[in-house]
Amino acid sequence: MSENSAAQSQQANRAPSNNVFVGLKPVMSYVTAIIMHLNSNNREVIVKARGNAISKAVDAVEVARRRFFEGKLVVKEISIGTEVLGQENERRNVSTMEIKLEKKD
Amino acid sequence: MSENSAAQSQQANRAPSNNVFVGLKPVMSYVTAIIMHLNSNNREVIVKARGNAISKAVDAVEVARRRFFEGKLVVKEISIGTEVLGQENERRNVSTMEIKLEKKD
Repeated sequence: MSENSAAQSQQANRAPSNNVFVGLKPVMSYVTAIIMHLNSNNREVIVKARGNAISKAVDAVEVARRRFFEGKLVVKEISIGTEVLGQENERRNVSTMEIKLEKKD
Repeated sequence: MSENSAAQSQQANRAPSNNVFVGLKPVMSYVTAIIMHLNSNNREVIVKARGNAISKAVDAVEVARRRFFEGKLVVKEISIGTEVLGQENERRNVSTMEIKLEKKD
């Protein structure tokens, strides 16, 4: 937990397995990431975001669902939480959200 | 659907029953609104937001849950969607979110 700001931007590039981390890029970058995950190996993808990126994550999911999958992409679960970021003197709470999506046939 | 921008700011003031509409005010305004709803008549409150206010809604829910209710406020359901705003020539899609909260004894 030492280099959080650097970590988040890296996560978007080399995202583990079926996770899409929403950060500072335009919404359509994440829509594309969601589509690529679902069109390759995974039926399920988890979209994660922190702080102000939460709104963008919802946008990306909605665009993917409505414009590209038309009813065949289902929101399975949405969860919210709080993460503590920063070192001892500069601790701050940041809200988090995870949206689990599943592709139907 | 004719005066949407005006409607949203009004909703925050005279919210129907157990709804809290998150808009442009500081996070703590909505935390207070959530607490007031739950301390008066309702065990259940629904926090609603559109667009960029979605992140703030999650913040408000998390602050209420962690700082004021300590485990006795449970997220029952989170749903996301899209609303079409504006007149014919200026239609645009806005993401929406609803978080249903329930107070436990």
